[in-house]
Amino acid sequence: MQLALKKGILFVLSGPSGAGKNTLLNAVLEKVPEVHYSVSATTRPSRPGEINGRNYFFISPERFQQGIEAGEFLEWTEFCGHYYGTPRRFIDERLAEGKSVIMDVDIRGAAQIKSQLPEVVSVFLLPPNMAVLHQRLVGRASEEEEAIRRRLEKALCEVQALTDYDYVIVNEDLDLAVERMKAIIIAERQRVTRIDCQRIMDQVLGGMLE
Amino acid sequence: MQLALKKGILFVLSGPSGAGKNTLLNAVLEKVPEVHYSVSATTRPSRPGEINGRNYFFISPERFQQGIEAGEFLEWTEFCGHYYGTPRRFIDERLAEGKSVIMDVDIRGAAQIKSQLPEVVSVFLLPPNMAVLHQRLVGRASEEEEAIRRRLEKALCEVQALTDYDYVIVNEDLDLAVERMKAIIIAERQRVTRIDCQRIMDQVLGGMLE
Repeated sequence: MQLALKKGILFVLSGPSGAGKNTLLNAVLEKVPEVHYSVSATTRPSRPGEINGRNYFFISPERFQQGIEAGEFLEWTEFCGHYYGTPRRFIDERLAEGKSVIMDVDIRGAAQIKSQLPEVVSVFLLPPNMAVLHQRLVGRASEEEEAIRRRLEKALCEVQALTDYDYVIVNEDLDLAVERMKAIIIAERQRVTRIDCQRIMDQVLGGMLE
Repeated sequence: MQLALKKGILFVLSGPSGAGKNTLLNAVLEKVPEVHYSVSATTRPSRPGEINGRNYFFISPERFQQGIEAGEFLEWTEFCGHYYGTPRRFIDERLAEGKSVIMDVDIRGAAQIKSQLPEVVSVFLLPPNMAVLHQRLVGRASEEEEAIRRRLEKALCEVQALTDYDYVIVNEDLDLAVERMKAIIIAERQRVTRIDCQRIMDQVLGGMLE
């Protein structure tokens, strides 16, 4: 029996670039079907193969600006001249249906979300060590040496934010990291504060009254 | 990599009689070897097959009284003329070694423990419904009808205590209940507040400094 939650749970995943957030996220989405991916909105042009409404909601800068003013984003940021934001409605609807949502977001975004949704579950993903992170970044052939150095510096800075999160996972082994993320999802669904206790009591005591 | 905890975690399991606490506990101890069982002290005589220091620490009423006065018990109670208590030292030693401990304890005992160790993780186990609980109790041939009625009334009362706990598990299916308890144990070991963050940062950043 799946316990009746008052509402779904939002899980946010942060961590330095190269820690393996996307790989973990995709593995979790595959293995935990009751969790949904939060689709972001962006003003950047779509790339070949990207599907509107699945990878991103591709919208115009004007529409994005309008969204900011109307408070439509749970968090938003600007990166390399493009805007990225998390549509509040998309998430609110799923949570209201009792579904859980997972997303990756940077540290600033996670803090913005926490201030609006204190019941969010935040997870920080760490690479086993920065040397491995360096290797992973170098492995992305597209990156220049200077860009890598900057990313590493940013990563170092980001690691300090760890203590603002609820959970930490060290991504030494993907299977283990997935198992731990899954455990966090299962455990959070058993939390008394998230559960509709009256409904459970009715259910449990129901057999007595029949 | 097992994250370095500041100290081990104490898990307490409560729930109405017949909910299946012992079965769950034994399955968890078997499947999660890094978790240890907390051995209680009691003044009741040992039964055939029971081993001192494994099932219980069998001690005299005088020794128990002395323990109460010296504050040696994390919680204690009297039941059917015998005393039962949780030796604080046994648990403190294991937690200091970074090991986790699990135990079953009644609602009053759980509250006593929480007041002394606020970082305890409390789990409430529920039968899927009281009708099943009734069947399980009747299944114990040793019980009289009147004793069953009293136990059910007590169980009804206990279910109300649910909201004082951190987690709830409905024991509809033992394998699922074990998986959920295991998830709670794994998740709690990833909690940032329980982790030695400085040690992790040194580890993660270590690769950068070499």
